Amino acid sequence: MSIVEIFKAAKASSSALARANSNLKNSALEQIATQLESNVSAILRANAIDLENAVQNGVAAGLQDRLRLDEKRIASLASAVRLVISLPDPIGQNVDGMTLPNGLRLQQVRVPFGVVGVIYEARPNVTVDIAALALKSGNAVLLRGGSAAENTNRILVELIQAGLELVGLPKSSVQTVDPFGRQGAVEMMQARGFIDVLIPRGSASLIHAVVTESKVPVIETGDGVVHMFVDESADIEKAIPMIVNAKVQRPSVCNALETLLVHQSIAARALPLIATALEEKGVTIHGCEQTLKYVSGVAATDEDWKTEYYSLDLSVKVVPDLDHALGHIAQYSTHHTESIITENQSNSERFLQEVDSAVVMVNASTRFTDGGEFGFGAEVGISTQKLHARGPMGLRELTSTKWLVRGNGQVRD
Amino acid sequence: MSIVEIFKAAKASSSALARANSNLKNSALEQIATQLESNVSAILRANAIDLENAVQNGVAAGLQDRLRLDEKRIASLASAVRLVISLPDPIGQNVDGMTLPNGLRLQQVRVPFGVVGVIYEARPNVTVDIAALALKSGNAVLLRGGSAAENTNRILVELIQAGLELVGLPKSSVQTVDPFGRQGAVEMMQARGFIDVLIPRGSASLIHAVVTESKVPVIETGDGVVHMFVDESADIEKAIPMIVNAKVQRPSVCNALETLLVHQSIAARALPLIATALEEKGVTIHGCEQTLKYVSGVAATDEDWKTEYYSLDLSVKVVPDLDHALGHIAQYSTHHTESIITENQSNSERFLQEVDSAVVMVNASTRFTDGGEFGFGAEVGISTQKLHARGPMGLRELTSTKWLVRGNGQVRD
Repeated sequence: MSIVEIFKAAKASSSALARANSNLKNSALEQIATQLESNVSAILRANAIDLENAVQNGVAAGLQDRLRLDEKRIASLASAVRLVISLPDPIGQNVDGMTLPNGLRLQQVRVPFGVVGVIYEARPNVTVDIAALALKSGNAVLLRGGSAAENTNRILVELIQAGLELVGLPKSSVQTVDPFGRQGAVEMMQARGFIDVLIPRGSASLIHAVVTESKVPVIETGDGVVHMFVDESADIEKAIPMIVNAKVQRPSVCNALETLLVHQSIAARALPLIATALEEKGVTIHGCEQTLKYVSGVAATDEDWKTEYYSLDLSVKVVPDLDHALGHIAQYSTHHTESIITENQSNSERFLQEVDSAVVMVNASTRFTDGGEFGFGAEVGISTQKLHARGPMGLRELTSTKWLVRGNGQVRD
Repeated sequence: MSIVEIFKAAKASSSALARANSNLKNSALEQIATQLESNVSAILRANAIDLENAVQNGVAAGLQDRLRLDEKRIASLASAVRLVISLPDPIGQNVDGMTLPNGLRLQQVRVPFGVVGVIYEARPNVTVDIAALALKSGNAVLLRGGSAAENTNRILVELIQAGLELVGLPKSSVQTVDPFGRQGAVEMMQARGFIDVLIPRGSASLIHAVVTESKVPVIETGDGVVHMFVDESADIEKAIPMIVNAKVQRPSVCNALETLLVHQSIAARALPLIATALEEKGVTIHGCEQTLKYVSGVAATDEDWKTEYYSLDLSVKVVPDLDHALGHIAQYSTHHTESIITENQSNSERFLQEVDSAVVMVNASTRFTDGGEFGFGAEVGISTQKLHARGPMGLRELTSTKWLVRGNGQVRD
């Protein structure tokens, strides 16, 4: 098939999906979960080819790990699909409604987008998560995964399509454009009229390219220069586990901590304790001049304040007060997640109000910004833009709305 | 000021607006209404210059009329501002919330976008409407109006700024980039980091240019190839006033009827009556072959089915059944508004379900797709995209959300 034929098939299948009721969609998901469980060895064979190529191409160990499937991970792919079955179906939900003085009855209801395009890197679990969420929300989906996962994604998409066909839904509801290579992504960005929304997931450069080049509406995701601020009144004993958790539990993801701001009046007491706990986990501190009076580390550069390390590095800055913390965040944040550690109610409320980020926290690890943690099931991504969706995106964020108007002959004066 | 200085000033003022409570925003709007009422002669002088230029430049009469202000129209600008005062403030409203098993309390609240950019054509009322809606929803706004209204818009923005300053809000909350000409619009489309959303209002070509070129997230508006379908079971007596109203009440706007589809089993009876009523109002029918067996008109071309006439022209097609009506709409609609005229409940529900447009109606004139009619007060525009907003956009559609998370030391396992 040509890529335009793929686009047309996606569009055609979106009508069937929009009409599918919850039972039918859930049956399809159950069949998909079963297909994954029944074809473990075939999936592993395909994955082994991708892993071998990755080794030969010198792909970094961390990326190889993200790419690798084993029996346990395949079982958790199936569990993720079954979790989506258990979530309420957003389609048809009432959003708003009113009766006008002239008797017109207005009803705003949730409807699927139609066709959702997702461009992402070599993580096979994303293929299954996105397909499950898209199907449950009545959308057809076009996938462009990283070429390093091409063989794994091909069999996953085949199994998903087999599950769809078993319940009578069109297999073109879930398609990959991977065979078209980079051109597949470029064509998706031009596909106005075929694709209703495009979601890039992955590196900052991938997301930047899609956001600036796409002619299809985009939801920008990811990219977290995430801050925590240790306020004057912070309980240091409580602060340390939150800071360590935010930095080291999974440093390679977007909700991991990148910059710690510390109120100067607590810095002498808190910083040595925080640094000891971080150093035990192998964290390197990039400190401002004042920070390095209290703890050892390398001198922070201007670039560090803008950097999402994805590693066991942490920028640390001592600030004179809450205003300066807010100012630093306003200047350097990517508007993903920020958290204040404080026992002062008015400071916490000011932080919640004034920080302009998708998720703003008080006394919690920034690692909680996650669709799974928020109870959305699998996650489409974390939106850092303000249009349409902000923060973790689940089923509801994969829907649009339409207005239904019921009259009996009304005309406008 | 350079245009970048204007962008920076808008961004700076957006923080003050985000913190402004409803009383302060309403006081600003009241001052703005008063400024408009107290400066009628100055507004008329500026408008007279624009009108004189329009005459000299041979601007079409319809556009001249949209540009013209008089005492009555200025009074209605002030009334529109006061109507916005009376609307509920969306900022701070709860959208969603839950407490997680680990005790984290999540709250999703409405927040302003920040800075909204609007690119529109020479209609001074849009300047005032948009400014009022943006301010009430806590947003700074950058305006690029049509150059034909430049003098009128300049004084309107000055009066709005005077109103803002009287209550202590920054005057840079509402600014125009008109002095930068076309380049102003181009710069706005590039202004990522300064402008959170860009809304084009106006001709199809203007909207197309913004949608495809902007690097800032866009809400697509307007452009209505609007359909009505006269079903087999339609009550012809009821149908005629709806069709006439939809076509002739204001043919130059996006919710006016462009294509009438008629079920073949009712065509012989209904079409002559419909045509007579339309001809009385000066409408020219562009009919399919079958249509022209029953009524006089010009032969419809393929192009006609795609055309938004903005005039007293109407494409008319006889279709064999509801399926063909749905198929024609799926092929040619711009997904703005479609209406079915029917007495058959199951056909009306199928039409509501299957037509993929922002507003889908049963037995109502398509002219009701309008923010004012929907009770939103003035209107930002009518979104024909599926991302973020769909259909008439009021205050709620000028907001984003953020998640507030309150914990007491939670870390992720």
